[in-house]
This record gives sequence, C-alpha cells and structure tokens, in this order.
Amino acid sequence: MDKYRVIEVKEAVRANNDRRAAELRAAMKERGQLLINLMSSPGSGKTTMLTRTIEALAPEMRIAVMEADIDSDVDAATISATGTRVIQLHTGGMCHLDAAMCEQGLEGLGADEADLIVLENVGNLVCPAEFDTGAAVNVTILSVPEGDDKPLKYPLMYEVCDVVLVNKIDVLPYFDFDLDKCRANVEMRHPGARVIPICAKTGEGMDEWFQWLRDQVAAIKA
Amino acid sequence: MDKYRVIEVKEAVRANNDRRAAELRAAMKERGQLLINLMSSPGSGKTTMLTRTIEALAPEMRIAVMEADIDSDVDAATISATGTRVIQLHTGGMCHLDAAMCEQGLEGLGADEADLIVLENVGNLVCPAEFDTGAAVNVTILSVPEGDDKPLKYPLMYEVCDVVLVNKIDVLPYFDFDLDKCRANVEMRHPGARVIPICAKTGEGMDEWFQWLRDQVAAIKA
Repeated sequence: MDKYRVIEVKEAVRANNDRRAAELRAAMKERGQLLINLMSSPGSGKTTMLTRTIEALAPEMRIAVMEADIDSDVDAATISATGTRVIQLHTGGMCHLDAAMCEQGLEGLGADEADLIVLENVGNLVCPAEFDTGAAVNVTILSVPEGDDKPLKYPLMYEVCDVVLVNKIDVLPYFDFDLDKCRANVEMRHPGARVIPICAKTGEGMDEWFQWLRDQVAAIKA
Repeated sequence: MDKYRVIEVKEAVRANNDRRAAELRAAMKERGQLLINLMSSPGSGKTTMLTRTIEALAPEMRIAVMEADIDSDVDAATISATGTRVIQLHTGGMCHLDAAMCEQGLEGLGADEADLIVLENVGNLVCPAEFDTGAAVNVTILSVPEGDDKPLKYPLMYEVCDVVLVNKIDVLPYFDFDLDKCRANVEMRHPGARVIPICAKTGEGMDEWFQWLRDQVAAIKA
C-alpha cells in the first residue's frame, strides 16, 4: 500500500485568488495552524532542508507536508520515509500553485491536527511568486551555487518572501558567492527580510531556522 | 553611451505561436543563421558558459546574443564586455519567451550577418519549455548542484531539448550527483539527446560542445 496519496490539483480563476487566499489564511489562523509556502529554484535543496527540519522538530510539534510537482513523486517518497504525513500534488504541467490548489491539497492531506504544514511549491523562481497560496509566510531558498545575484534577476520572489535561507554554505569556498552582497540584494527587494545561511546537509545554521519556526508556530496560536 | 539596447518584449496570442515559430525557423534556415534557445534553472551557469563559448568561437564565426530576463541587465552587461553584439530583452514579469518575443528581439538585435545567434531564455525549467521560440535547436544546462533527478521532475524541458550540458562537473566530489543516472534520466525523456559534461569555469569538456556547435552552424548553411 502507498504511504502517501497523489492528487491532481486544478487552478481557480485568477481574479478570485487574492480573496480565496485571504480567507484560507484567516481560517488557518483560526485553527492555530501555521502554513508555510516554501519556494526556490529547482535543486536548491527544499526537500533536504525540509527532511532535516522534520527530524529536528517532530518531537516537539506536529508537522505535515504538501509536495507540489509537475509529474514525479520523488519528493513525497523522501518525506514519507521520515514517517511524516505527506501528500503529493500534481499540477499537470502548471508552473505554480494558487490558493484553490492549496485548499485542495489541504483537504487531501487531512492534517487538521498539525501545528505546522509546509507547502513545497514547484521549483521555479518566477511564477510561484505571483500567486498568493494563502500561506501565513513565504520562505525561499537560495543555494550558493546559484549565485548572489538572484534577487536582482527574480525581483518578485524576493519581494514576497519573509525569509531567505541561503543553503549549501559548505561549498562557499568553491563558488564566487558573496554573502554580504547577497544580504544587500535581498534587503533591496524586501527591507527587513530575514536571511539565514544554512547547510541542510551538515546542519550548520539550522538552529536559527528552527527557532524562527518555533516562534512562528507560537505566534499563530496566540 | 550604453553598449547594448534594452527592449520590452510582448507575448503574442498563444494559438498562433507554433505557426509563427515554424515560419521564423524556416526564415533563419533560409538566411543560413543558427538560432539556439538556451534554457535552464536560475544560476546553472548559462551566461558563464556562453561567455566561454564566445571567447573560443568568435575568431571563426560571427556570434550575437539575446539575453532575456524579467528585470535586470546583469547578463547583457557580462556578454557586452566580450565585445559581442548583444541585446537585453525584458519580459515584464513573463516567465518565458515565445516566437513573437524572439522575433522582436531579433529585430532589435539587428544581427543579419551573424552565423550563430543564442537566445538565453529566462531561468526557469517549466514555462520556457512550453513555447516554441522558433530556434533550430533547444539546449539546456543542468548543473551538478541541482541534482541528477531533474529530468524526472521537469519532464517537458528534457523532452524538448536536443542537448543537455551537465555543468559544474568540477564540484562533482562535493555533491551526490550520479552522472550515469543523469544520462539514463535524460535518455528516458528524450531518446538520443546528447549529454555533454562540462565545466564552463575551467573549460573541461567544452571542446565537444564547440564541435557540436560548429557542426550545427555548417548544417544550417548546407
């Protein structure tokens, strides 16, 4: 028997999205559940970061995950191996998720008891940033090999994100990546956005991220 | 005075795109010009690869470049520094280019004498694959830090590409990237697609890519 469901999600009419997203956000707050929209380029380490986060925080909070992908189940299988409740959302070629697709995912997930629900969006720095999913916070990962200029080239992604996790800092010596320049580029797009350098593989810097998550979960229940 | 122009390009009606692309492709063949559509994730090294290619091949063929980006001029400035004719195309938030946008770029570029014209598409593994730009060949870069599973997760990109450049092979020792698995994943999506492992930074493997380009330029003039 499969350990996770796979469902096809369908987009709603664009004009209604902002209203639906606001309603979903209010409903999640009412239920005391923190919904996070995790976005990034393909291959920046979303699933690895998520796996480490689950391993660290599962003893102290209930976590559930929605994995969005165009076609494969690779990520849901990885998350499922941690014993976490997870659902795979197939977008049928769509490059992003909207609030309606997120709602369909939450329904399929059936995690009414979760404290933290993470929506791992399609790997794409452009389109996902254009659609409010209804999440309380937007988080993006920028991995060192991608370069410190990404906030210059993908402005909207960095404008809408509250936290930027700079991942794969273990390979900083092998790439031309300037962490100060990266911080300045993020600050230009979103003044006050939190930048947390991490290495999901080695665990470096992850404590700051875990504490940020704990604070957010506490705040949504307040 | 600026060394390159920046123009805003606009999308045409979707239904007409395939016809326009076919017409553009026929016109380029007629003129003996090779148009390449270069796609990849953000930060996989498209501009660096292109810079090295220009440095190596400029003495033997006339090259021109169209840089597409949502907002910045970072890439056109880099290419311009090589002395190559280049234009920056701004998509105004659009996540891809279509044949009409490509035509507008060619008009602005004014490179009727070029043997090879490279269109560097928006960094995105999803949407650019859906739109035929009129290019003779589609090329994608998969960089080692992104992982060997990308053809599983972004099927269409790998179905439409004739060549996959596996870039940043200098950092293979630091990442869990299996080149054989990568080749098998590409082959599954596009049987017969050419996979060329390269390191644009060090030049490793680039000769095979240069030769492939020479052969394509010769073929379009035949």
